[in-house]
Amino acid sequence: MSDGDPVTTLTTDQCWAMLHEHEFGRLAFHLAGEVHLTPINYAVDHETLLFRTAEGSKLLGVVMNPDVAFEIDEYDEHRARSVVVRGVARRLEEDEQYRTENIPLRPWVTSPKYDVVEIRPTEITGRSFDLTRPWLHMLPS
Amino acid sequence: MSDGDPVTTLTTDQCWAMLHEHEFGRLAFHLAGEVHLTPINYAVDHETLLFRTAEGSKLLGVVMNPDVAFEIDEYDEHRARSVVVRGVARRLEEDEQYRTENIPLRPWVTSPKYDVVEIRPTEITGRSFDLTRPWLHMLPS
Repeated sequence: MSDGDPVTTLTTDQCWAMLHEHEFGRLAFHLAGEVHLTPINYAVDHETLLFRTAEGSKLLGVVMNPDVAFEIDEYDEHRARSVVVRGVARRLEEDEQYRTENIPLRPWVTSPKYDVVEIRPTEITGRSFDLTRPWLHMLPS
Repeated sequence: MSDGDPVTTLTTDQCWAMLHEHEFGRLAFHLAGEVHLTPINYAVDHETLLFRTAEGSKLLGVVMNPDVAFEIDEYDEHRARSVVVRGVARRLEEDEQYRTENIPLRPWVTSPKYDVVEIRPTEITGRSFDLTRPWLHMLPS
């Protein structure tokens, strides 16, 4: 209350810097009226995020409903920082898949056939949480 | 292809063990027809997950649509493991909030007034991704 707000907002530049540093995040998407969440390996390509998904994967729910949210974070004992991207997903056409060739996108998808999905951000928010305050609840001994 | 599937499934017991070890995850929820995603501090209470949210927070979208997904993960250079919980969220009544008193739930919420939300899992899935294969795409020099 009196010792400053332990939650601060990151600038958009700080958010993009974090998005460039990481390669692993979580994607939330609609599927048949439910919200689903999955870890993904991604890379930044200009002002978009790209990831691969196995052909026919349920992740292609994003083609049915392109409204998605994506999150990355980092934390240690003292601080947690997160970036949340809300955006619009679409599957890249075959003649656009070259866009993955010059970015560091790890091959977590083992299927020989895969699709590339682009997330075009509509909103990017980042927050830093100060965790240095004493715990109110102790870990069980 | 021939060197074994780099993706393996965790048992439900392994998933719960990971849920007990961690205290930080990401919650995906519906809000006004959109999917939203936010980092949360949580703790396991018996067969449920509990977290705090500031009173009036948008997280209370879970009261309007209790369908949620929750994810935790851990990774190093060689392996990534993730657990995804799909479930039903509800706000605890005041006389149930004592349930937070004996669990290690860090006070990330700074508001003096807060609600406690319970997630009751309907589906728990865990996967381990072997990252030891050579990269197909090199990092830019």
